[in-house]
Amino acid sequence: MRDDTHISLAHGNGGRLMRELIAEVFARHLANPDLDVTADAVPLEMDSRRLMFTTDGFTVKPLEFPGGDIGALAVHGTCNDLAVAGATPRFLSLNAFIEEGLEIRRLDRFIASMAEAARELGVRIVTGDTKVVPRGEGSGLYLATSGLGVCTHERTLSIGSVKAGDAVLVSGPVGDHGTAVLLAREQFGLTGTLKSDVASVLPLTQALLRVKGLKFMRDPTRGGLASVAHEVARVARVTVRLRAEAVPVRNEVRSVCEMLGYDPYYLACEGRVVAFVTREDAAEALASWRRLADGREAAIVGHVESPGEPRVILETPLGGERFLEELEDDPLPRIC
Amino acid sequence: MRDDTHISLAHGNGGRLMRELIAEVFARHLANPDLDVTADAVPLEMDSRRLMFTTDGFTVKPLEFPGGDIGALAVHGTCNDLAVAGATPRFLSLNAFIEEGLEIRRLDRFIASMAEAARELGVRIVTGDTKVVPRGEGSGLYLATSGLGVCTHERTLSIGSVKAGDAVLVSGPVGDHGTAVLLAREQFGLTGTLKSDVASVLPLTQALLRVKGLKFMRDPTRGGLASVAHEVARVARVTVRLRAEAVPVRNEVRSVCEMLGYDPYYLACEGRVVAFVTREDAAEALASWRRLADGREAAIVGHVESPGEPRVILETPLGGERFLEELEDDPLPRIC
Repeated sequence: MRDDTHISLAHGNGGRLMRELIAEVFARHLANPDLDVTADAVPLEMDSRRLMFTTDGFTVKPLEFPGGDIGALAVHGTCNDLAVAGATPRFLSLNAFIEEGLEIRRLDRFIASMAEAARELGVRIVTGDTKVVPRGEGSGLYLATSGLGVCTHERTLSIGSVKAGDAVLVSGPVGDHGTAVLLAREQFGLTGTLKSDVASVLPLTQALLRVKGLKFMRDPTRGGLASVAHEVARVARVTVRLRAEAVPVRNEVRSVCEMLGYDPYYLACEGRVVAFVTREDAAEALASWRRLADGREAAIVGHVESPGEPRVILETPLGGERFLEELEDDPLPRIC
Repeated sequence: MRDDTHISLAHGNGGRLMRELIAEVFARHLANPDLDVTADAVPLEMDSRRLMFTTDGFTVKPLEFPGGDIGALAVHGTCNDLAVAGATPRFLSLNAFIEEGLEIRRLDRFIASMAEAARELGVRIVTGDTKVVPRGEGSGLYLATSGLGVCTHERTLSIGSVKAGDAVLVSGPVGDHGTAVLLAREQFGLTGTLKSDVASVLPLTQALLRVKGLKFMRDPTRGGLASVAHEVARVARVTVRLRAEAVPVRNEVRSVCEMLGYDPYYLACEGRVVAFVTREDAAEALASWRRLADGREAAIVGHVESPGEPRVILETPLGGERFLEELEDDPLPRIC
């Protein structure tokens, strides 16, 4: 007898069970005027020819963690990539790779969570595909989302425009998402009350787009603040100098890092922005963030210098300094 | 010591190895003026506001099979969904879920194969994301592609417009892809010379867009011809009547189906089109396909009737008839 409460391979075969799963889980939660689950492709009404396109995959483990789940992450992760590029997210596609045996009630929760995140953002999930993979593969659920956004301004942001003298800002404490996922795994016998920072960064990026001296924004996900700084150093051929005392890090994140030997600068955030702004406009940028609920703990955390060679330097509280090297081994896999 | 010939978890961490993998495998093969592997999102120049958007996931096993591989499949599968919707594919996003331990040389072959398929089609892969999942998950490689296309015509195709009297056409033999993948698995001790039909259907769909009586097209992938017929019957509330003798099926596909008890009408194609056309224009549609290299074996395989209730009927060679039921159990999982 077929078990109707859990995913079976037949849910992926193009037949009745797949059709019903799509109708009862995906279409029910994600319903919107542009979603047509019987169409091969959907027409889009875009109000601009300045389109932006991006994509992201999600393999977070566990699938649920304090503050969010893989569904919310898959909406915000891709929409945040559009936001930091200066766009307003409009449409998403969704791919689900579902493991045979996943409880359908859990899948339903993740898709409901996607729908809620999309509604808050005013984004429509308009096309999707599901595949079922055999038990033992797929770790429950992988998601991929591709996003289309529109630019309603004339700004050109680019990593290559960052120059010596520019200020480095972060919009809030770093490492919350990485640490919350780590605690949710319970593999180190640690528990805590920390929540992931997974959220839309659109209010933050929209505020900064009004600051003339804005050069470049990025959300510090995989590899964290340090990896964003490295990418800028490498592409713009500059040195990025960060001040440890200026970088906001919650006490709980700091404690976990000290216990496990992690460095918070490399831990993933899913609702923060790192911005590079001219020295002249840094104070204005900071003020525009601090006026927002998600930017109250924003800080200027460093500045850009001309390099001997491109690198990232951390000034430590006691007046020393050390290099933040490019990430080699993974401190924390499967975090997003 | 790190093994540099196979994927490790560190290839997914946002650090040096990931950056190098993206540069040396993905960016090298997929290089085009719109691909920027350092950007969060890429701007698109679209020459039309009539955009079409679609997405598809790929979990085929084995990753290589006679006539193609997962890379070619991931380009053609998504572009074919745009083509049957009446659009010309322009841009793709790419998600790769890579299993730890996959040989980098193999990955390189799949991405090269994607690049070749994209070049032939005039499509650009402009944004991508890679995730690495632990050994034992992911079955080597899953891919997802989302596609953007433009409609350069004023046709409106819709499954709901299919009516009693319309003719059903297929562009070539059915079941080649499903059977070729099955043979590549060697799990039944069968071998053969059959190749997958994986290919672009764009020439076929473009030709048919010039036929006035065209109602609806679909590529019969998962669930095959029978599942397309079922979807039409269900949504348009009609009966679809197919003639077994008229449906082109290669001898090798027929033999494998007879040996294993499969029904070729349910087996996946990856380079065929099923079209519904008014009775008056069916001959013109057939002729326009037969002029093309990929349409030489096209055939009118049935017609649409008013239903007692929506269903699919197969007329058998000896004058009998049977229902083709909606797919319940999976004849052949992991086929695309």
